[in-house]
Amino acid sequence: VFPPDTPVGRIGEKALLRHIRARIAAGPGVVVGLGDDAAVVETGPVTLVTTDSLVEGIHFRREWGPANLVGRKALAVNLSDIDAMGGVPRYATVSLCLPADAPFGFVEGLYDGLLARAGETGVQLVGGNVSGTADSIVVDVTLLGHGDRLLRRSGARPGDVALVTGTLGAAAMGLRLLGEGKRITTVGEAGQALRHCLTAQLDPAPPLGFGDAVARGHLAHAAIDLSDGLSGDLRAVCEESGVAAWVDGDALPIDPAVAILERERSGDPTALAIHGGEDYQLLLAAAPEDVPALRDLAARMNVPLTRVGGFTEGEPAVSLRTASGVVPLAARSHEHFGGRG
Amino acid sequence: VFPPDTPVGRIGEKALLRHIRARIAAGPGVVVGLGDDAAVVETGPVTLVTTDSLVEGIHFRREWGPANLVGRKALAVNLSDIDAMGGVPRYATVSLCLPADAPFGFVEGLYDGLLARAGETGVQLVGGNVSGTADSIVVDVTLLGHGDRLLRRSGARPGDVALVTGTLGAAAMGLRLLGEGKRITTVGEAGQALRHCLTAQLDPAPPLGFGDAVARGHLAHAAIDLSDGLSGDLRAVCEESGVAAWVDGDALPIDPAVAILERERSGDPTALAIHGGEDYQLLLAAAPEDVPALRDLAARMNVPLTRVGGFTEGEPAVSLRTASGVVPLAARSHEHFGGRG
Repeated sequence: VFPPDTPVGRIGEKALLRHIRARIAAGPGVVVGLGDDAAVVETGPVTLVTTDSLVEGIHFRREWGPANLVGRKALAVNLSDIDAMGGVPRYATVSLCLPADAPFGFVEGLYDGLLARAGETGVQLVGGNVSGTADSIVVDVTLLGHGDRLLRRSGARPGDVALVTGTLGAAAMGLRLLGEGKRITTVGEAGQALRHCLTAQLDPAPPLGFGDAVARGHLAHAAIDLSDGLSGDLRAVCEESGVAAWVDGDALPIDPAVAILERERSGDPTALAIHGGEDYQLLLAAAPEDVPALRDLAARMNVPLTRVGGFTEGEPAVSLRTASGVVPLAARSHEHFGGRG
Repeated sequence: VFPPDTPVGRIGEKALLRHIRARIAAGPGVVVGLGDDAAVVETGPVTLVTTDSLVEGIHFRREWGPANLVGRKALAVNLSDIDAMGGVPRYATVSLCLPADAPFGFVEGLYDGLLARAGETGVQLVGGNVSGTADSIVVDVTLLGHGDRLLRRSGARPGDVALVTGTLGAAAMGLRLLGEGKRITTVGEAGQALRHCLTAQLDPAPPLGFGDAVARGHLAHAAIDLSDGLSGDLRAVCEESGVAAWVDGDALPIDPAVAILERERSGDPTALAIHGGEDYQLLLAAAPEDVPALRDLAARMNVPLTRVGGFTEGEPAVSLRTASGVVPLAARSHEHFGGRG
């Protein structure tokens, strides 16, 4: 082991990879773990695959918080995708790009978080690659899962109810707070709402297992995870399903901490709940007659579930209904190139 | 479609992803392709997984050649890993990090290369992610494969023969030539040796299918693909297998173009063949009695195969035997952090 401030460039790629491999034990289903040309894992007749990266300067900054939260989030955003397909996460590979001056302590912390989140969810880390890069750290995770009942984006039907799990807006508020200099490590006990939003941004907690349970019970026609924001993700379901949708602006499960913090600054919590991304909650399209069973399941699994709107026939588009009328709802999603030129 | 010089930041992540998805057709084994939360693919009882990235400024430079070669190589380095395990490549996911000013034409070219190489090898692209980054392009590929007979790194035994496919040193020579300003697009017809080495570096051609055939015939005890160079990769086999190895310095299949170019500059072609990386050929450990069958198989598949040394009992280490004696062979592998501090 090296002192935490050792630049990885001084350790070297091979030695760092050896160290990482030594931290990772083989687990259930792993025929060949890290250290060979490829990993070998036991799979079912179909395998779910998803890939998502966290890029320094775009999705995270090192000064935002401890490195283990970057590791946790890098896995969580992929866990959310597998759950939204109705699958069970199994195996992950991690491809890590590091500038030569990145400290060893960051890599240790990152793997602390990856391994902890993997342990919580029964995921085995089976592949790892370490590479150099000129400047920004990139953590790219590919996650494999099992699944025999699938929840597609394309199954929503006219007449279906739109429901979301959890609350909305806290992760987007957390991002704003980070930009204002708030840190999870320094916010005091009094700052409960701040801490909640910072945690939602830095360590997202998708309702894991709920998608799988919904799929097994045939309780929804379609699902997507809320990574880009309700407006954008609901529109994606409409496009894939060939339907229109509406959102009840007065029924949104706005995160209570977001409501408190926005009230303090005379802001609009509804906008954050509708357009703010990275909630990593599930958006479901379900037949009205399945809603009671869906509510029972959610209650048993301690997953908050709120009816937020519905699907209708029509061109793919989303409208917002409030007491003052109906307006078209444009997607204002994340665009990770960081600017539209 | 956008003009090739359009910065991707002006196109936006969603629109670019839509364009990429439209280019990729679903193929055999693909239950759900791109465009949902996760891809879904048919798999066997075991699945091989490997991941490897190409990072701009570390593994490639945009001025080195056309973007399609970056795409081809990004897949090839992973194909080589699956083949070295004795597997058959099936499905790939691509995670692409782009700075906002990267031109659309680069992305088009990259996918031209990825799709062409995938088509040549029966691989389906099933996952794609596009993300921003501050500056360097990162192409991260994860490749899944089938395989029921595995070629591990750990199976070499004392008395085994060491063999390599193809020739050695051309890719490392190509890297040196690129550093000297030589380009595949401008080298004339007369520069056949130059062109050969530049191609070896920019568009590597692993002996695909040979690893699978060797594994099916039970003709080798161990295999590794030569990505870091013979000295480093042979040492890795020794470490995993708990054996020592020796290399016959006079028997190496030095690439003829490397020999010509090194002779011109009074250099040492043997050093390039031993330490130069990225040949993406196979290094095999085989029982002496299996060598004739291995040679027959190689001849049938048009794969050059050369005996380069052997394995003995002893601490993991590699020695070099030449007419002038035996010396220890230290690994001088790639260290992709680009400097050891």
